[in-house]
Amino acid sequence: MQRTKVKELLTGAEVGKEVLLKGWVRTKRGNKFVNFIAVNDGSTIHNLQVVADAEKFPEETLKDITTGASVAVTGELVASQGKGQAYEVVANTIEVIGKADPEAYPLQKKAHSLEFLREIAHLRFRTNTFGAVFRVRNTLAFAVHKFFNEKGFVYMHTPIITASDAEGAGEMFRVTTLDPINPPLTEDGQVNYEEDFFGRATNLTVSGQLEGELAAMAFSDIYTFGPTFRAENSNTTRHLAEFWMIEPEMAFYDLKMNADLAEDFIKYIIREAIEKNRDDIEFLGQRLVEEDKTRPQNERQEMTLMEKLEFVVNNDFERVTYTEAIDILVNSPAYKKKKFQYEVSWGVDLQSEHERYLVEKHFKKPVIVTDYPKDIKAFYMRLNDDGKTVAAMDILAPGIGEIVGGSQREERLDLLVERMKGVGIEEEALWWYLDTRRFGGCPHAGFGLGFERLVQFVTGMGNIRDVIPFPRTPQNAEF
Amino acid sequence: MQRTKVKELLTGAEVGKEVLLKGWVRTKRGNKFVNFIAVNDGSTIHNLQVVADAEKFPEETLKDITTGASVAVTGELVASQGKGQAYEVVANTIEVIGKADPEAYPLQKKAHSLEFLREIAHLRFRTNTFGAVFRVRNTLAFAVHKFFNEKGFVYMHTPIITASDAEGAGEMFRVTTLDPINPPLTEDGQVNYEEDFFGRATNLTVSGQLEGELAAMAFSDIYTFGPTFRAENSNTTRHLAEFWMIEPEMAFYDLKMNADLAEDFIKYIIREAIEKNRDDIEFLGQRLVEEDKTRPQNERQEMTLMEKLEFVVNNDFERVTYTEAIDILVNSPAYKKKKFQYEVSWGVDLQSEHERYLVEKHFKKPVIVTDYPKDIKAFYMRLNDDGKTVAAMDILAPGIGEIVGGSQREERLDLLVERMKGVGIEEEALWWYLDTRRFGGCPHAGFGLGFERLVQFVTGMGNIRDVIPFPRTPQNAEF
Repeated sequence: MQRTKVKELLTGAEVGKEVLLKGWVRTKRGNKFVNFIAVNDGSTIHNLQVVADAEKFPEETLKDITTGASVAVTGELVASQGKGQAYEVVANTIEVIGKADPEAYPLQKKAHSLEFLREIAHLRFRTNTFGAVFRVRNTLAFAVHKFFNEKGFVYMHTPIITASDAEGAGEMFRVTTLDPINPPLTEDGQVNYEEDFFGRATNLTVSGQLEGELAAMAFSDIYTFGPTFRAENSNTTRHLAEFWMIEPEMAFYDLKMNADLAEDFIKYIIREAIEKNRDDIEFLGQRLVEEDKTRPQNERQEMTLMEKLEFVVNNDFERVTYTEAIDILVNSPAYKKKKFQYEVSWGVDLQSEHERYLVEKHFKKPVIVTDYPKDIKAFYMRLNDDGKTVAAMDILAPGIGEIVGGSQREERLDLLVERMKGVGIEEEALWWYLDTRRFGGCPHAGFGLGFERLVQFVTGMGNIRDVIPFPRTPQNAEF
Repeated sequence: MQRTKVKELLTGAEVGKEVLLKGWVRTKRGNKFVNFIAVNDGSTIHNLQVVADAEKFPEETLKDITTGASVAVTGELVASQGKGQAYEVVANTIEVIGKADPEAYPLQKKAHSLEFLREIAHLRFRTNTFGAVFRVRNTLAFAVHKFFNEKGFVYMHTPIITASDAEGAGEMFRVTTLDPINPPLTEDGQVNYEEDFFGRATNLTVSGQLEGELAAMAFSDIYTFGPTFRAENSNTTRHLAEFWMIEPEMAFYDLKMNADLAEDFIKYIIREAIEKNRDDIEFLGQRLVEEDKTRPQNERQEMTLMEKLEFVVNNDFERVTYTEAIDILVNSPAYKKKKFQYEVSWGVDLQSEHERYLVEKHFKKPVIVTDYPKDIKAFYMRLNDDGKTVAAMDILAPGIGEIVGGSQREERLDLLVERMKGVGIEEEALWWYLDTRRFGGCPHAGFGLGFERLVQFVTGMGNIRDVIPFPRTPQNAEF
């Protein structure tokens, strides 16, 4: 007999038929006459209830049916008489495939802290919370590809190991095969990277943007979706050393078109999650409601998770320039009451507290901030006619902060080279990047979206370590 | 006016209308009365012909319209009178957005060698060949996600930086932030990795399989699609230091189900490419036909590229055991004429020449070879009842060799630990992997498919460096 997944069984399409169910036991309860076994196979947050007549099954089989054990069950799918489920399986046969000793198996019925589950990240997929998180993550990832595919964008795998540093900054991981204790040295005592695997010093990429731009100059519209790395010693709920990034790059786009695309994109993928993972999101929302109950009334969320997502999908993002944003902040009650820790004045970078004020207090919706001072942005961003701002945009989301960073790129060779010099990047190091400005260059734009931040936003998970399967952070590369 | 892509214009849907076209000039020809400008924007292999009346445009504009320049053209889309295209645009306005000095731009009209184009990989996307290759690659990548999404598999991002070595072998790249000249040492003179970023020695992953298995024990069916790395000094047409791999992992699957899935999968994604990239594949096939003309008659391909792909899609893969394969080889004319360079006998690993014989001479179709001797396969493969073979499978494709490697996994804790010991892996190093056998374990299986090998197969490109945007190979990490 062919196995049917729980998600399919719960549609009731096969009611009245003999079915084969395989999965893992979540709970078992009952009395001396009958056992109710909740089986989950990861296809949905819901379990399938298996009704096992005590008379029908040997005691030693029933004894092995404990939380975490894997089972195969055959039986009839019937409409359930009990509360909590529409369908259940009346078992004819039950096979315990793999036991889970209750004395040793760490995931017992009781609730576990997210911190504890992080220590057993190899098992946490088996909980309701992480099942929901990673099913949502899956939907979002597929939606990313679907969105760009429908628009005719070409998916590019930009290199992971690279000799360039796209941001002209950022701490990077070195990639090497040289002897770790006695590396070959040059005459002046430096490491001789000519003897390294690639014949030069290489790092893990911090962004695929520069390479993405090269491809956009041939395919018009491209995107990347791959891992990126930061060797920053940041132990926060928003930083990972290894994370996934989506970077579209479009020829013949200006900043406005770029912002329009980013807004459409975010709404599209959230809409997909709402449609395909309503159950998971409602479960995760309920988690937040419970969490909120431990907080004072005035700190609780105004909207449920699902309401928040629907609000984002159904409302225009606010758009303001950096200059307008500074005005808003300087004229805010928070500023006047000296509630900001960091300085606010034209020219400074917006801190998290400022971004949150704009998004959560002032506009109460996602905000696209454009046209930042050139001195606080990357060299490749296009200089505006005012000579002091660049065509940059950041999208700020409630509860998360910056979720997208993008810009129109500087397509004018002379201005680009000047900016590069200003930040100490030599022309020779990026000869290939400059070639796109020498030969058939054009106005173009793009943005980067940190995938895990997006997953956090959609799942409501407070710690970024809980939305990637095996987080890489300072002092942690387990599993 | 909204820009329309060439692919859309060539459908003729907007014939009779004023359109805006943006892209890059491929060629310009004509006489003193009229110019014909072929414009490509990467959306299709076909160019759109722009007809520019010489009277209408100043000479200096026409002078700047050279190969590689980017242009914006408005004009009426009309049915073409000329040969070679169904539609063309009669230009009203032409703007040269970015020039491409014919003296300096390396991609002139003449054909360039693939070797030369590899040196300018940042520009090669602008050629017909690489345009076709990367559009096909894009289709294949999306088809991978579509296939698994339709089947309810969960996409997992397994870690890139890892402290484990899935294969128990393979040369790896070290990832570190320690001082490259004077790393901190322990008392006994070893590098003190406790002071490294992750507090331990870390490498770039060679496979996401082990982590994938953990997730399959919760979601039933998962897949990975991410970059993997080998620090092997292999300068061949089939090896990259950085390449993308697809690794599905399925709970409750045996070897037969695994092979069925792999065969369905390969056929599905090739079918998608045939449907969506017929033009590109036909162009690439024509390339091979031209290439073949330089070869003696008896070395030429029997089928065109498109015929080969349709053959694969429409025929069952052959299935043989390793033992049967050895029999076939030992009884082959090639063996008897001593045409094999490497030994053939039960127990040895199949060499490329043997695989090619089986696939290209004997069966003339893709072959799934199963049940290899345990001593030549990885520790995690399930021991068969004969005690000397394991439930492994390799899929061999014509012209490429091994394209898939998979197995049913050893789910029996005691046997797994024994195999690990045999290859020198300590239990403590993979405690989390072994936990999946301790708690709710079950028969499961999976496979890995090297994405670039597949792209090679579908595009007919002979060198793997020509199917990934920026190849990473020994002594090469440019761009």
